[in-house]
Amino acid sequence: MLSQLLKPDYEELIRAKDWNTLRELLVELDPPDLAEILELLSPQDSALMFRILPRAEATDAFEHLSVELQAALVETLADKQLVDILDEMAPDDRTRLLEELPAEVTRRLVHTLSPPQRQIANQLLGYPERSAGRSMTPEYVAIRPDMTVAEALTYIREHARKSETINVVYITDARAKLLGEVRLATLVLAAPTARVDSIEDAQLVAIPATALREDVVAAFEKYDRVALPVTDGAGHLVGIITVDDVLDVQAEEATEDIQKLGGTEALDAPYLDTSFGTMVKKRAGWLAVLLVGEMLTATAMTHYEHEIERAVVLALFVPLIISSGGNSGSQATSLIIRALALREVELADWWRVFVRELRSGLALGLILGVIGFMRIQFWPTAATTYGPYYTRVALTVAGSLIGVVLFGSVVGSMLPFALRRVKLDPATASAPFVATLVDVTGLVIYFSVANFFLKGFLL
Amino acid sequence: MLSQLLKPDYEELIRAKDWNTLRELLVELDPPDLAEILELLSPQDSALMFRILPRAEATDAFEHLSVELQAALVETLADKQLVDILDEMAPDDRTRLLEELPAEVTRRLVHTLSPPQRQIANQLLGYPERSAGRSMTPEYVAIRPDMTVAEALTYIREHARKSETINVVYITDARAKLLGEVRLATLVLAAPTARVDSIEDAQLVAIPATALREDVVAAFEKYDRVALPVTDGAGHLVGIITVDDVLDVQAEEATEDIQKLGGTEALDAPYLDTSFGTMVKKRAGWLAVLLVGEMLTATAMTHYEHEIERAVVLALFVPLIISSGGNSGSQATSLIIRALALREVELADWWRVFVRELRSGLALGLILGVIGFMRIQFWPTAATTYGPYYTRVALTVAGSLIGVVLFGSVVGSMLPFALRRVKLDPATASAPFVATLVDVTGLVIYFSVANFFLKGFLL
Repeated sequence: MLSQLLKPDYEELIRAKDWNTLRELLVELDPPDLAEILELLSPQDSALMFRILPRAEATDAFEHLSVELQAALVETLADKQLVDILDEMAPDDRTRLLEELPAEVTRRLVHTLSPPQRQIANQLLGYPERSAGRSMTPEYVAIRPDMTVAEALTYIREHARKSETINVVYITDARAKLLGEVRLATLVLAAPTARVDSIEDAQLVAIPATALREDVVAAFEKYDRVALPVTDGAGHLVGIITVDDVLDVQAEEATEDIQKLGGTEALDAPYLDTSFGTMVKKRAGWLAVLLVGEMLTATAMTHYEHEIERAVVLALFVPLIISSGGNSGSQATSLIIRALALREVELADWWRVFVRELRSGLALGLILGVIGFMRIQFWPTAATTYGPYYTRVALTVAGSLIGVVLFGSVVGSMLPFALRRVKLDPATASAPFVATLVDVTGLVIYFSVANFFLKGFLL
Repeated sequence: MLSQLLKPDYEELIRAKDWNTLRELLVELDPPDLAEILELLSPQDSALMFRILPRAEATDAFEHLSVELQAALVETLADKQLVDILDEMAPDDRTRLLEELPAEVTRRLVHTLSPPQRQIANQLLGYPERSAGRSMTPEYVAIRPDMTVAEALTYIREHARKSETINVVYITDARAKLLGEVRLATLVLAAPTARVDSIEDAQLVAIPATALREDVVAAFEKYDRVALPVTDGAGHLVGIITVDDVLDVQAEEATEDIQKLGGTEALDAPYLDTSFGTMVKKRAGWLAVLLVGEMLTATAMTHYEHEIERAVVLALFVPLIISSGGNSGSQATSLIIRALALREVELADWWRVFVRELRSGLALGLILGVIGFMRIQFWPTAATTYGPYYTRVALTVAGSLIGVVLFGSVVGSMLPFALRRVKLDPATASAPFVATLVDVTGLVIYFSVANFFLKGFLL
């Protein structure tokens, strides 16, 4: 709130080139608030403001910026300032930035880091994209199982750097094999003479470095921890993941799913920060594919041109029929995509879901069918608007609604399973994609039902 | 993974009524794993398993169950066991359960709690639904500003109960006014003789008890904390919110948005746990509303019946035109709903978004228009399939695509703002809702463009 009120003031000071006042104002702010202001300004102004910040404040604020603004600043900052910042950044945040930059920029920047940080950066970038290894930091404190609580606390006091997460410390053997974990809170409350491996604490949960980031989120949701250790194939502790990053990953995953569900490619950046060209590119692809798919409806309609010529009344209900199929498909696909993402439903559950959607689709179709029937049958001007056989038209619409809603529910729910089965993202089954799939079949259902009820009358 | 492999074994032991073996197996498990198994079984089996658990294990596992299974167990457990569990539950988890239960059950249960817990439960339930007050726990440790670090650590050792979150402790005056916070890690690393109010730690961020839970999520995302203090209107510390609950709230909010975007009411329960009746009820409402809305397309089509009679070729492209409008609307609405939820875009940004969508919609419409034109113009059998004026038909389709995609993008993006403006949830602007809105206008656009290009030729 505060920062938004002040935005014009900052812009005015920048225009007036009053760098001293600006610097004084900025260093007073807490890093997250400072970062928020930088995000609100134009990238050019952000860069100007950033360059006048003292080194410590610049580094702290940089870590709180979105990875998009970080990447933009990388291009404008002097090499010296950039290296200072990257060297002092938390390794997990740095990985996030480096994987966002073009490969050659990443290579150049990693090369300028101090040797120990360079080694860390290379190690983390060595893990596959979207893996647990990419989200972890090697900044943790490890203690030995035979230490007493007092020894452990002394060791922590001597070895923890200020930046490190020590809410949980890890018990390892001499070869870095992870044996257990103990919360700092437990150590503080325990008897000083107790051995750390005798302190009862929560069950040890370790994440393999190659685990997917969705699995990391699921582990944090299940175990309610503030940090979880990451291990290599042999059970050695290689890093930790902290809950603040999990909160970010979870939000990102939901954003991707929502954008895909809406029929866009994931933007990977805030809406207003996405350039016009990128925005059009990310949306045009699917729209064009769907348009080509929809052209099948024109082909299908051509097939039924004779029916339409003989009974124009049939054309009137085409939009209503196909959109009802699309709507029920959109419901089913969004429910299943979310249930799969939350692991409430697994691939093996497809049959249970199929049966459920068959029943739900039938019930929903019947409800819509009754409404559709009544709308036509009891329309005041039914006989003049829909012709002498309006009851048969009403039956056609009702029967088709049952068919398309049932079909939409089943296809919409099964498509995410099919995509998961062939290792694609279930969220690719966007609402528009399902609607398009259902449209063509919806027309076939509609004209088939029409042939059944109207043959010998209108057709 | 483990628990799923074993599910049939558990069911077999239940069928065999081998309670002793079952109890032995269950008490070996960690509470989150035990809870996971209970979730996998049928509610009846869960209740059976739960009743044979020793008190301590039952209480620990109960806290890790979904609120839906908790509510189901409440109905089957003996009053004595229930009261024990509720009395020992973390107050924030208990509030979540109590607000899920029918009002009279909640009243009865609160009445059976021990007096101190009863007071806490009543206090928390006194805050508005979905507010920060409802998600907090009063279990925190508060220290005084004039304590030394050594005194503070001694005080924490004496006063912290095992269940409490002491990763952060809070500095208050004698009247419980919140003055600051200090992390346990900072205390452990600080000089024992330093005064706690002299220790530099992160900026104090407090959440008002009346804040919305979305604001709580936003604060945690911004400040990267494991807990945040909650204050009343006068700045007194009334509780804390821990990050594990925020992770749950964030996931729930995303689930609601995705389900609404798909055109369903929020299920408020996992897909497979939702009863058939509830499932149909939550979906039928919107489907019926949308069907009634779609009936306007029948009315609009009736209006253009003469045009269709004279040029049946026009009917062929109706599905293609309206679905393209719906698809672009679905894209725009999902992008904006997510951007609003993440606060990347605020209400005041509507004009910037409007201009952006006007430009994007035009660009996307042009792209689709060109594809649509070519599909008809260069179709091998264009002259026989679409008649002698097929180029004019192609121009009609192309022009309409530009119009409906532009209209869909603008309406789809503005509707979430309009809903937020009148204090409704922007996610109510579901993809099917926008598609329905756009359909009627899409028809008007299509037949108007047709009149322009085909008047005197086909019309």
